[in-house]
Amino acid sequence: MRQADLVSEPRTGHLGFARLDLDRERRTGTPEVVFAAGKTPAETVACLAGLLDGATGPEPFAWATRVDDATAAAVLERWPDAVVDAQARCALVGRPPEPVGEVLVLTAGTSDGPVAAEVAATLRACGVGCRRVDDVGVAGIHRVLSVAPDLAAADAVVVVAGMDGALPSVVAGLTDRLVVAVPTSVGYGAAFEGLAALLTMLTACAPGVLVVNIDNGFGAGVAAARIARSRQR
Amino acid sequence: MRQADLVSEPRTGHLGFARLDLDRERRTGTPEVVFAAGKTPAETVACLAGLLDGATGPEPFAWATRVDDATAAAVLERWPDAVVDAQARCALVGRPPEPVGEVLVLTAGTSDGPVAAEVAATLRACGVGCRRVDDVGVAGIHRVLSVAPDLAAADAVVVVAGMDGALPSVVAGLTDRLVVAVPTSVGYGAAFEGLAALLTMLTACAPGVLVVNIDNGFGAGVAAARIARSRQR
Amino acid sequence: MRQADLVSEPRTGHLGFARLDLDRERRTGTPEVVFAAGKTPAETVACLAGLLDGATGPEPFAWATRVDDATAAAVLERWPDAVVDAQARCALVGRPPEPVGEVLVLTAGTSDGPVAAEVAATLRACGVGCRRVDDVGVAGIHRVLSVAPDLAAADAVVVVAGMDGALPSVVAGLTDRLVVAVPTSVGYGAAFEGLAALLTMLTACAPGVLVVNIDNGFGAGVAAARIARSRQR
Amino acid sequence: MRQADLVSEPRTGHLGFARLDLDRERRTGTPEVVFAAGKTPAETVACLAGLLDGATGPEPFAWATRVDDATAAAVLERWPDAVVDAQARCALVGRPPEPVGEVLVLTAGTSDGPVAAEVAATLRACGVGCRRVDDVGVAGIHRVLSVAPDLAAADAVVVVAGMDGALPSVVAGLTDRLVVAVPTSVGYGAAFEGLAALLTMLTACAPGVLVVNIDNGFGAGVAAARIARSRQR
Amino acid sequence: MRQADLVSEPRTGHLGFARLDLDRERRTGTPEVVFAAGKTPAETVACLAGLLDGATGPEPFAWATRVDDATAAAVLERWPDAVVDAQARCALVGRPPEPVGEVLVLTAGTSDGPVAAEVAATLRACGVGCRRVDDVGVAGIHRVLSVAPDLAAADAVVVVAGMDGALPSVVAGLTDRLVVAVPTSVGYGAAFEGLAALLTMLTACAPGVLVVNIDNGFGAGVAAARIARSRQR
Amino acid sequence: MRQADLVSEPRTGHLGFARLDLDRERRTGTPEVVFAAGKTPAETVACLAGLLDGATGPEPFAWATRVDDATAAAVLERWPDAVVDAQARCALVGRPPEPVGEVLVLTAGTSDGPVAAEVAATLRACGVGCRRVDDVGVAGIHRVLSVAPDLAAADAVVVVAGMDGALPSVVAGLTDRLVVAVPTSVGYGAAFEGLAALLTMLTACAPGVLVVNIDNGFGAGVAAARIARSRQR
Amino acid sequence: MRQADLVSEPRTGHLGFARLDLDRERRTGTPEVVFAAGKTPAETVACLAGLLDGATGPEPFAWATRVDDATAAAVLERWPDAVVDAQARCALVGRPPEPVGEVLVLTAGTSDGPVAAEVAATLRACGVGCRRVDDVGVAGIHRVLSVAPDLAAADAVVVVAGMDGALPSVVAGLTDRLVVAVPTSVGYGAAFEGLAALLTMLTACAPGVLVVNIDNGFGAGVAAARIARSRQR
Amino acid sequence: MRQADLVSEPRTGHLGFARLDLDRERRTGTPEVVFAAGKTPAETVACLAGLLDGATGPEPFAWATRVDDATAAAVLERWPDAVVDAQARCALVGRPPEPVGEVLVLTAGTSDGPVAAEVAATLRACGVGCRRVDDVGVAGIHRVLSVAPDLAAADAVVVVAGMDGALPSVVAGLTDRLVVAVPTSVGYGAAFEGLAALLTMLTACAPGVLVVNIDNGFGAGVAAARIARSRQR
Repeated sequence: MRQADLVSEPRTGHLGFARLDLDRERRTGTPEVVFAAGKTPAETVACLAGLLDGATGPEPFAWATRVDDATAAAVLERWPDAVVDAQARCALVGRPPEPVGEVLVLTAGTSDGPVAAEVAATLRACGVGCRRVDDVGVAGIHRVLSVAPDLAAADAVVVVAGMDGALPSVVAGLTDRLVVAVPTSVGYGAAFEGLAALLTMLTACAPGVLVVNIDNGFGAGVAAARIARSRQR
Repeated sequence: MRQADLVSEPRTGHLGFARLDLDRERRTGTPEVVFAAGKTPAETVACLAGLLDGATGPEPFAWATRVDDATAAAVLERWPDAVVDAQARCALVGRPPEPVGEVLVLTAGTSDGPVAAEVAATLRACGVGCRRVDDVGVAGIHRVLSVAPDLAAADAVVVVAGMDGALPSVVAGLTDRLVVAVPTSVGYGAAFEGLAALLTMLTACAPGVLVVNIDNGFGAGVAAARIARSRQR
Repeated sequence: MRQADLVSEPRTGHLGFARLDLDRERRTGTPEVVFAAGKTPAETVACLAGLLDGATGPEPFAWATRVDDATAAAVLERWPDAVVDAQARCALVGRPPEPVGEVLVLTAGTSDGPVAAEVAATLRACGVGCRRVDDVGVAGIHRVLSVAPDLAAADAVVVVAGMDGALPSVVAGLTDRLVVAVPTSVGYGAAFEGLAALLTMLTACAPGVLVVNIDNGFGAGVAAARIARSRQR
Repeated sequence: MRQADLVSEPRTGHLGFARLDLDRERRTGTPEVVFAAGKTPAETVACLAGLLDGATGPEPFAWATRVDDATAAAVLERWPDAVVDAQARCALVGRPPEPVGEVLVLTAGTSDGPVAAEVAATLRACGVGCRRVDDVGVAGIHRVLSVAPDLAAADAVVVVAGMDGALPSVVAGLTDRLVVAVPTSVGYGAAFEGLAALLTMLTACAPGVLVVNIDNGFGAGVAAARIARSRQR
Repeated sequence: MRQADLVSEPRTGHLGFARLDLDRERRTGTPEVVFAAGKTPAETVACLAGLLDGATGPEPFAWATRVDDATAAAVLERWPDAVVDAQARCALVGRPPEPVGEVLVLTAGTSDGPVAAEVAATLRACGVGCRRVDDVGVAGIHRVLSVAPDLAAADAVVVVAGMDGALPSVVAGLTDRLVVAVPTSVGYGAAFEGLAALLTMLTACAPGVLVVNIDNGFGAGVAAARIARSRQR
Repeated sequence: MRQADLVSEPRTGHLGFARLDLDRERRTGTPEVVFAAGKTPAETVACLAGLLDGATGPEPFAWATRVDDATAAAVLERWPDAVVDAQARCALVGRPPEPVGEVLVLTAGTSDGPVAAEVAATLRACGVGCRRVDDVGVAGIHRVLSVAPDLAAADAVVVVAGMDGALPSVVAGLTDRLVVAVPTSVGYGAAFEGLAALLTMLTACAPGVLVVNIDNGFGAGVAAARIARSRQR
Repeated sequence: MRQADLVSEPRTGHLGFARLDLDRERRTGTPEVVFAAGKTPAETVACLAGLLDGATGPEPFAWATRVDDATAAAVLERWPDAVVDAQARCALVGRPPEPVGEVLVLTAGTSDGPVAAEVAATLRACGVGCRRVDDVGVAGIHRVLSVAPDLAAADAVVVVAGMDGALPSVVAGLTDRLVVAVPTSVGYGAAFEGLAALLTMLTACAPGVLVVNIDNGFGAGVAAARIARSRQR
Repeated sequence: MRQADLVSEPRTGHLGFARLDLDRERRTGTPEVVFAAGKTPAETVACLAGLLDGATGPEPFAWATRVDDATAAAVLERWPDAVVDAQARCALVGRPPEPVGEVLVLTAGTSDGPVAAEVAATLRACGVGCRRVDDVGVAGIHRVLSVAPDLAAADAVVVVAGMDGALPSVVAGLTDRLVVAVPTSVGYGAAFEGLAALLTMLTACAPGVLVVNIDNGFGAGVAAARIARSRQR
């Protein structure tokens, strides 16, 4: 990329209330996504349509995260073939890229499921394979140890955990893969809406743990996809 | 204990600046201790002397925690036979009770040593045996698993850990013994002087974990001693 | 327990979304519990059924905490003989072990009742006796002093308190029993959803106080049950 | 006081770097004090001199708080008859008013002594009597109960406590006197430099507790003096 | 009060879920109050009835704070003559003591009204007169200055303020009366539910400011009543 | 302004529950506004009416912020010609001053729109022109660079941003105009309701950034209006 | 400024460890400053020399903030004519622009002096006049009112205050000038190193208050200078 | 890796106070490191010696982080050929692996240098190439844009930034490489020892940003090395 490209004539789709970054995929390898929280259903639909219109590849594709029920309905009304994952709160319109590689997604408990689902949906949107193993928290350490073969087979590992957030520390000590840790807001009291898990992961005693925001399955998915895709090249 | 005992004629040693609770051992099973932080060396020596004077058993014994170098010197000048543990910052004057039972004290890393030493000194002062296994953090999970036989042999377990504080969650999933968790101020940045470890332990996903204040080896030792002594009765 | 047991062939019940730890009771002495928060009623019922199916003792028993109304109804529809404690938000299916020993459960105020009820339900599920004395906050110190005989008779003491959380400090100065302190989210303003009581208990000036998470009646109950059962052996 | 007085010709002593409020005693009943922290010794001496110069009563008097060793020396060099209380870090120059009434000052532990000393020095400066009883923390509740006669004799009560800060809650349940609670920065870990005690006192379950800033013996002393003086009128 | 009184035969009304402190008024000069938050309407009514039954004076009186609509209705159904102040969320049953003295209650803004109303209701329940002046925040400093005559006439001053909580600092510089400061949860963003105002008041640059918990109109009212009553003796 | 003006006969409109500061515009150049949060619709209408009654200029004008639906309806019922901006939650009654100058209002994302709308409404009420450019967050830096011509044309710049709050740092490095930064509560997890953006803006590495409270579009608008008007003089 | 200017050939002085932004004054109107904290004396001297070398105007000028004693000495050794303000910790080398306009700088107390001195030094470096009035805290409100004539004469007002940080709220209610509020870390306990003052200022009940980081006299000075210079054009 | 390997006969070097994890490199691809903080110089030397003794490859190599002056001297005394990087506080003994690939390390300001140096030393120890570009903070956005060619050439990017921590948000919008963000404790006041930068990075509006602990150059280096090495395979 030449530096001049950055400011001369970026391809931007102006919608008045929003400015679609049609150029993002070329720059960052990740397609622009519509963050539906704080947008009306109509605004989200308009953004998705704008992204589809601006797409330059052979298979138009656009997607949105943090989609509530009303927005999901609006998307499905406009594009009946769209795929909406209710647990992940994601909507995919058109055909995502063929998946390459594989990211292992672990959860510490059942309640971490929705965030793991967002990771999985993001991987699908980014064209990367996903393998999930759920409910392997450290309170039953044999459950963690049993995923060792899966660790060896993965391009990267995403660990989703709330409460004490201890799982990434253990996993990172068992593998040479990068571990992307996602704290969740699961827990009560001194969990402080995910703060406890966040601090645990930031201070993990095993190196190789990288952390994203609380409940940010999207960010973890994008990062893991970048790793997986670059290894598959 | 009759209720009236609580307020009628408690045996209290007044030193002007302090009020020794000579009756504490009868009430709580744990001898009064001198918390030397915030006291001058002379005040700590005076408190120890007051406790020795007020002792009613056959073997006078008194002790102090948070003893700095100057106080240690003052104690040793007054009682040359005193035992001062520099790492634990504890001073024991006279003969502690014969140890019964055994508490297992685990540390996650080498830097947690001073707090574990305070636990050990407290156990000795309370007349309970102690077995230490150090540096078994979860980043090398086989190190944790290797202590399983020790867990089975202990009356109670004290786990001392800083940084992510994840060790108690794993240990409590491996044993039916009570796990007393001590967060330490070891770590930097988002460890926030022990806050991260404290929150991790409070939100441990394995039940049976009980928590004391950051760096509070004394409190953990007293509690573990109570458990051990009550099991030995 | 031999170390090899930990990883070879653990008895795990896979339900897809959850991985039941059927082996937990053998390892930790405490039966696996279903944490119903964040699970659908159907998921909780499925977990309970899985635990009952996997039970190896003569009296099948399983239980769940943080049960809301919908889940309670689903449990009762499946097992009409189940016992649901609405205040404690716990459901017990089958026959819990016969109670041994006795844990004293104190509350500082009437509003701490639901958490104390969770402690009591947990003790019942773990097969330990329970004696409750409510509303003995330190603002009327004679109320605290009046429980001295109960303290002497208990195997362990659980103190449940919100607002200033001062009760455990006073109780621990009156007894040689272990005091498990449960901060509650009762209070407003600077109580900060239980943070004030939590900090008070962690910094209690009387040793022998061990702390669990805010509103964590379950954790306190499990810990107290371990103490009581080990003393009764 | 007429409203116009407030802005017309207040008696202010300008020192360049400071603006002495010579009128404060008339308005608020409390003489202006020099807060020496953040001032050089020379600045503190200049402020004290300015206050003495501006004094209108028969007995010139001025005083300073948070006086360090260098400032104390400078004060004593200028006014050899000044009274400097090293523990309280206060310096009194000239003759304070004759004491009336009596405020009871309680401390929970020996380490709270310096703050209690600042309370006592403030009472002396404000012309109010002081009675101190130290080291009556709630871990030995009989020590608290033994001060009941002192409570009944006092015009107001100041309670100084660090760590769990539980003492004011108990005291306020025993008396009809106003309880001014001073949290201290004594303690470690989750005491968070006095935050734990501050929150405990703010959420005290007994009404009649009023709180000042951490370690603010000066503020507590001024408030208690106002109460005492108004009762003696 | 003799010390023995404290533990011998306190007059306590046991209701099972609650333990009424019928002796509180004798000890502390303030009648026991029912804190209705966290109680069912029936429980609050039962507590009020218990207090009325236990009353020993000629005019039975009992009251409750934090009364919601359902509880208010239950109280009025049982005692049609009860007085319920909807803004203050207080219910008074029977005849409160004749008011003596006068407390000045200031609010910084209109939104602080409900907390000020709780102060006023508490003063009425404690038998103290009340004068309110509303909406005198420091953004229009002439509004503050205009209350100077009211300050001079009051026995004590209660200042209720949210947002920046700056009003007590200004008021305390204008009067020799004790200023009881009540931070409110009014405000948004960095007001952090009253934390900003709380910290402002604790660090007020004018001495003589004493602080209660956020939104704690009850505590401020009790304290101010004690001051006023003691001045009227 | 002479000093005496400040306290002599301020023109204040007393409404019982509120004290309108009719004199504010003369003193501060900004007309008094009604903060409708925490007021009933009737109270807000009464305040607006009082301001209109007290207006001395040729064109009566009054306005309110934080207007919810019920209040908006009440305002429109009373003054059918009022302008209510639903996104900004502002109501303007009468004719605001003719706009002079121009303030540039930037948002980082679509979700920051409501706060930017409050800025715009405030500018209109204060008689200053407004130019908005939305959705120019730093993740697509060319979007920021493209506003350089707008920066040069503005009297002041208001930057509204949630999440990482990084936009003001970049903008302030591109212009000599004052940058008023408004953190918004947009974001989740470690955004902590706007705290992350607030801290980012306070620590901006480019000087010339001034910060207001989270979501405080009103405060930013008033400040920017003052700058613009003073430049146009 | 044309957009292309921003990226084409910026004039940057590379020093290896630092990249001087010689172009900053053209872009932002404020000359680049050397932030000496975290730099060795030699590095600061090298940066200053680089800025002087790169200066294009007739009067070379460069300056540094947060200069400690060692750095001050190094600067004076290199440039004996440099002006070092020890209280402000600023060093000015060469001749700053002739001052235009006037900014009023107020402090609440004497201890806020060093931060106010940094404001003043920054104004001098930016070529703006400064008038300081010190020690006008709200505890003596007449002191605040007495600055009214100064407010009217100023182009902008900077208010520096620690502890409760209440002064900007009062000042902003008295003037139509922009008020730049600087919280300082003066105070103890609940002042939390300036956090209390920061929150107070962010939630100021008077509009027109803009806030900078704690102790950030530099940032306040730059902002005030921009306002003053733009008014003088 | 077979699961049984994890617990059967791990190669552990016991030093009494520490338990060297000689097997870590086989499991995780990263050689064990000695964290020297909290260890005596002798302990660090003993750990390094133990690692060198346990090394199985042809070129023995061991290293330590957080090395203070005394420890550096002890290392150099024992191994005169060791390489000690004073800014990075790292010591490398023996010959690190030949570097493959290249990681780009950016700093926002000069003061972030020590943390970037730790990243660089870690990369060298892990056998990965490093390219540093310093002082490219967003306040001069052209400096950031000028690194675009470097971004395209790198295997991964590490961004080190204190104060507002805004740099990773901008960088991640310009590249498809993974961005590892390291907040530093550089800054003052509301930077809160790196908390502001940490929160900014966690809430970065550009996906692909992964975060490590404050000042944790080691963790960032290990993670970036894993990415680079996996791309080079």
